[in-house]
Amino acid sequence: MRELRKDPVLNRWVIVSTERSLRPSDFESFNPEQHGANGHVIDPFAEGNEHLTPPEIFAVRSPDSRPNGPGWQVRVIPNKFPALGIEGDLDPRGYGLYDRMNGVGAHEVIIETPRSEEHLPDFSLPHLVDILTTVRTRIEDLSRDLRFAYVLPFKNHGYAAGASLRHAHSQIIATPVVPARVLEELQAAQAHWNQKRRSIFVDILDQELLMQERIVFENEQTVAFCPYASSSPFEVHIYPRRMSPYLRTASTEDLRGLAEAIKTVVLRWQVALGDPAYNLLIRSAPNETLLSGIHRDYPYMEAFYLWHVEMFPRLARGAGFEWGTGFSINPTPPEEAAQYMRSIEVEVA
Amino acid sequence: MRELRKDPVLNRWVIVSTERSLRPSDFESFNPEQHGANGHVIDPFAEGNEHLTPPEIFAVRSPDSRPNGPGWQVRVIPNKFPALGIEGDLDPRGYGLYDRMNGVGAHEVIIETPRSEEHLPDFSLPHLVDILTTVRTRIEDLSRDLRFAYVLPFKNHGYAAGASLRHAHSQIIATPVVPARVLEELQAAQAHWNQKRRSIFVDILDQELLMQERIVFENEQTVAFCPYASSSPFEVHIYPRRMSPYLRTASTEDLRGLAEAIKTVVLRWQVALGDPAYNLLIRSAPNETLLSGIHRDYPYMEAFYLWHVEMFPRLARGAGFEWGTGFSINPTPPEEAAQYMRSIEVEVA
Repeated sequence: MRELRKDPVLNRWVIVSTERSLRPSDFESFNPEQHGANGHVIDPFAEGNEHLTPPEIFAVRSPDSRPNGPGWQVRVIPNKFPALGIEGDLDPRGYGLYDRMNGVGAHEVIIETPRSEEHLPDFSLPHLVDILTTVRTRIEDLSRDLRFAYVLPFKNHGYAAGASLRHAHSQIIATPVVPARVLEELQAAQAHWNQKRRSIFVDILDQELLMQERIVFENEQTVAFCPYASSSPFEVHIYPRRMSPYLRTASTEDLRGLAEAIKTVVLRWQVALGDPAYNLLIRSAPNETLLSGIHRDYPYMEAFYLWHVEMFPRLARGAGFEWGTGFSINPTPPEEAAQYMRSIEVEVA
Repeated sequence: MRELRKDPVLNRWVIVSTERSLRPSDFESFNPEQHGANGHVIDPFAEGNEHLTPPEIFAVRSPDSRPNGPGWQVRVIPNKFPALGIEGDLDPRGYGLYDRMNGVGAHEVIIETPRSEEHLPDFSLPHLVDILTTVRTRIEDLSRDLRFAYVLPFKNHGYAAGASLRHAHSQIIATPVVPARVLEELQAAQAHWNQKRRSIFVDILDQELLMQERIVFENEQTVAFCPYASSSPFEVHIYPRRMSPYLRTASTEDLRGLAEAIKTVVLRWQVALGDPAYNLLIRSAPNETLLSGIHRDYPYMEAFYLWHVEMFPRLARGAGFEWGTGFSINPTPPEEAAQYMRSIEVEVA
């Protein structure tokens, strides 16, 4: 069973997906690590173990190598236990008062490296650009599917951030509805546009550059800063300087700048916070579909939306108050976090 | 420093509060347990240790006992490390593009029992009614403060739910702005009212009673059910049968019915899930204040809002996808959770 159900009070969709876990004891995310005869952990994402994963969708690999064999640098596979299934129609239906549709979507895994013990801070900049280029390619492809209103690439690193496997990887989920969180962004950005005919994202970037209080890192393509209302300590957003609603329009040079910014932030986090668990998200504008009706509801979206990256270390446990209100309690002012992070020297190459 | 800052893209307030934690190593909630000379843990919430807490605000205590001494059953104290401070004016100001105000509010702790090792399932029903009556009293009192737009009583039980102290306790936070999560509820409920002139909450209750698929427990005063779009496994909402927007209007008989429902749910969770960490929230309608303007924005609120309780075990770690979208992935259909919970026999007295 894979179903999307709408909370009628919060207007928010929930994925009810029994494919991922069937027993109450299984609530931790499924751990795909396999154990060999001698009890050693077998890493299904390592080079040479391609037969342990579903067939690849895309890979950056050497010209003389063959799909689903060794010789790759970045590899994309379907998630073996997807939250949403790729087959079928949405078939939106009422159920009395309630709304439901089939749990249709895409759920892919980007294996970021062929090597088991290598993580983002170890990647060379060209390798990180290969990963981001792979993300861009997958977004482009998934955005062509007329069922998918939103495509979210994200990375969970470390147990506290929800990662269930140590091998460095990211995920992409494509959903048939625009998530509530994204609609909130669009509503606020549209209200700002209606009032000022300016992009709220560009206004934020301008104010951060003017004030210089919360900037963490700048290069020619991007600006990394701790947001004024950071919901968690050491949260960092990375905005491109070149206005565009979609990551898929980013040039390789843009992605090189982004790679440098991401690696700088993670390296500085390592110095400041040890090796924190963290989440990283890439936000692009949603896609027009029959269900999303996004161009009708947000006709100026392409003028005001700015694709960007959000990154936050997972340092605190969310508790009842945060859940119950949407408020966060942040014990570290972003000005202090940014100042501390600026002071850390790191080698990015 | 205690400040409220508004996220301009998500229209959501964040509490930046350095009072609670100053160093990056302190991100876990402050642990108020104290250690005695022999290394034993001293429980500041236990009877006899009243001098280790701030002076009490309210207590259910025997007539011959004295404030801040032994002889109590339930005791309310200010949180020693409050997220919001009780003194001062809000002084809302702009900061360039951004919005801020002083971090003014209330943050109280309800010590639910004088005994260190007793938890909710051990409480007698009359004792649980004493706790709920105490909550009602504190809500009434805090709602009289013209600065506070919203009062949220909540309970974090267990480490994964954010509790920092083992001794059974709840908390109440009063905030000067209406939280985003609550505004979302009001907007959806108002849209329903505008279309149907009915309360969405009452419609949900009616459909659950009609279908009988997701009911966990019923008594004369309340109905406990797993919501259709449960965002987490074994989530339970408890609605009162008697329509009212405010918990403060609940009679002692209503609270007795609520106590029975809450205890039944927690006892059944224990059988189904072990001793899960969980959060419990009591939602009432927000208060009219100069800043909230709630009566102007939601003139029919008192006709459509229904106070209720939300309870969810903390079984899964939130990951990047959930954070990035507001979507939850729930591996247990609420129908199955409710059926399982209905089948569990427990002794509630």
